[in-house]
Amino acid sequence: MSVGERELIKRIRERVGAPGRATLVGIGDDAAVFERAQGLGLITCDAFVDGVHFRRDFATFREIGTKCMVANISDIAAMGGFPTRAVVSLCIPAHIAEADIAAIYDGFLDACRRYSFDIVGGDIVSSPSDLAISITLMGAASRDRIVTRSGAVVGDAIMMTGRVGGAEAGLRALTAGLPQEGAVHVAVRRHLRPVPRIAEAQAFLDVATPHAMIDISDGLGSELWHLAEESGVGVRIEESRIPIDASAIAVAQKIGCSAFELAMGSGEEFELIVAIPPSEMSRTVEHMAAVTGTTATHIGDVVDAAEGCSIVRSDGSRESLERSGYEHLGGVNGEVMGNE
Amino acid sequence: MSVGERELIKRIRERVGAPGRATLVGIGDDAAVFERAQGLGLITCDAFVDGVHFRRDFATFREIGTKCMVANISDIAAMGGFPTRAVVSLCIPAHIAEADIAAIYDGFLDACRRYSFDIVGGDIVSSPSDLAISITLMGAASRDRIVTRSGAVVGDAIMMTGRVGGAEAGLRALTAGLPQEGAVHVAVRRHLRPVPRIAEAQAFLDVATPHAMIDISDGLGSELWHLAEESGVGVRIEESRIPIDASAIAVAQKIGCSAFELAMGSGEEFELIVAIPPSEMSRTVEHMAAVTGTTATHIGDVVDAAEGCSIVRSDGSRESLERSGYEHLGGVNGEVMGNE
Repeated sequence: MSVGERELIKRIRERVGAPGRATLVGIGDDAAVFERAQGLGLITCDAFVDGVHFRRDFATFREIGTKCMVANISDIAAMGGFPTRAVVSLCIPAHIAEADIAAIYDGFLDACRRYSFDIVGGDIVSSPSDLAISITLMGAASRDRIVTRSGAVVGDAIMMTGRVGGAEAGLRALTAGLPQEGAVHVAVRRHLRPVPRIAEAQAFLDVATPHAMIDISDGLGSELWHLAEESGVGVRIEESRIPIDASAIAVAQKIGCSAFELAMGSGEEFELIVAIPPSEMSRTVEHMAAVTGTTATHIGDVVDAAEGCSIVRSDGSRESLERSGYEHLGGVNGEVMGNE
Repeated sequence: MSVGERELIKRIRERVGAPGRATLVGIGDDAAVFERAQGLGLITCDAFVDGVHFRRDFATFREIGTKCMVANISDIAAMGGFPTRAVVSLCIPAHIAEADIAAIYDGFLDACRRYSFDIVGGDIVSSPSDLAISITLMGAASRDRIVTRSGAVVGDAIMMTGRVGGAEAGLRALTAGLPQEGAVHVAVRRHLRPVPRIAEAQAFLDVATPHAMIDISDGLGSELWHLAEESGVGVRIEESRIPIDASAIAVAQKIGCSAFELAMGSGEEFELIVAIPPSEMSRTVEHMAAVTGTTATHIGDVVDAAEGCSIVRSDGSRESLERSGYEHLGGVNGEVMGNE
């Protein structure tokens, strides 16, 4: 997000105003949260446009469908919830065949079946030029297991799941036309077939008291800023602690760029960033590994807001954290302006 | 909807399959319906594309925003429900200014305030060419006041609210560049500022037992076919009973077309078509007028499926009902393919 785009979202948020009492979390988090007679309801919505968020020469229609759905599932996961039902609207230009639409739906349904929820409705309309997919996903969460972006407090440890950089490395490898073998193949899979961290979010909730949680949609740097700004705190992370995906390191060597930059700016990783009390770190790491097989890594700490967001580089120098604003598909065709 | 498009929706419906137990109504109605601890939840979703569903030289961005939201509210109304919260995604090409996006949001919010619900989230993304708006609206309904499209039985009276033809007349008047005065002004308002029939749906439920209800999104002819097909019945309506809007009659004269055709094919009217037992007609008409000021008119009857959908013309001849498939903006740029 550029400054202008952040400003636009801020203005819309002001315009929309505070939601009614039954809505606990409105615009500005991974998903909105509202009261239900039993537990809490969640709702999230993401749009994806051909040439901006996906490329049809890189992915099959089925892969595109699944990935769009996974992006929404990840938003629900990052609130501590489970997906329950989806509606989908498709804007279809004339050059898209019916079989392609069916393949996109098959992709949606792969995700639905894997994570046990239904598509209950939708809309299919013609568009003059652009293929666009908009998904709204509902979810449910227990009242005592909801986590927003805004509860991090000074002193919290910042943990993240898994490893980052692979998705961006995969996209760069596809763009550069690298032969898809070995580490490149792994990176491309990370880009095309990301996995939402539902079980991992629950594992945090099982043994820790997460104060804030967010998924990596736009890149590690950006998401740390989001979490810090929504919580009214600063963050300080350490380069040496960031778990960079081996495939990202390999691809970085091949294309001659920095694996660190890949890791910081890699979007659609869908790993979780979570702020928890430091005393809960070791049991969290242990429990996470035991129940999900995923690593949880301590990458830094929550600090005073006045300190802002910074990173201690491997040489000991400290610099302001780049917002890195993941530009979908390398910014060739545009970028996400807001992604609540 | 063309045959090919109906076929596509049918195939998608088969692909998606029956929803889980908690979902009472899935794809194929105005909105999906699901069980909640208290009452029922509703969800509906519609997409709108510049040049297909609206024209920026005909409407302001604010009018466009309101009308898109109203289309969704109408779907909730037609199930017997009330809107509760919305999420909105916008695909924005570079030529759309921030002020335009704000105006679209102001349009959304006009509808939100008028019908007492919130926008709780959304997404704003860049698109290469097309401005697209996708809205998902949630709603709530009592368990004993939900009405689908599929419950009409042979012998039911088919009622409709208000008058039809005005919206199409307004669109034709705008296209023809007629001076906006008198009846033309009224018709243009009908096209640009339609009203959802929430109170009217409730009025039916207050004093009658509606077996099926649907809103006029795609045109009277099309919606009667939808209702008949979902209910497994036929319908027979009478031309002489159809309440044609005075503005449609006036515009038809000016542009030299048939007011009847305007009335049958007029989309986005958002009037309701309702099947009720004939014994409940007179009290329904009375109650409707008393609590909403809207007329309810008996336009025909539900007949055996074998009879299909037909209309008795004013000269006594009978013909098959045209699906009329309202083509948004006269089909200049495409048409709705599915609109659940």
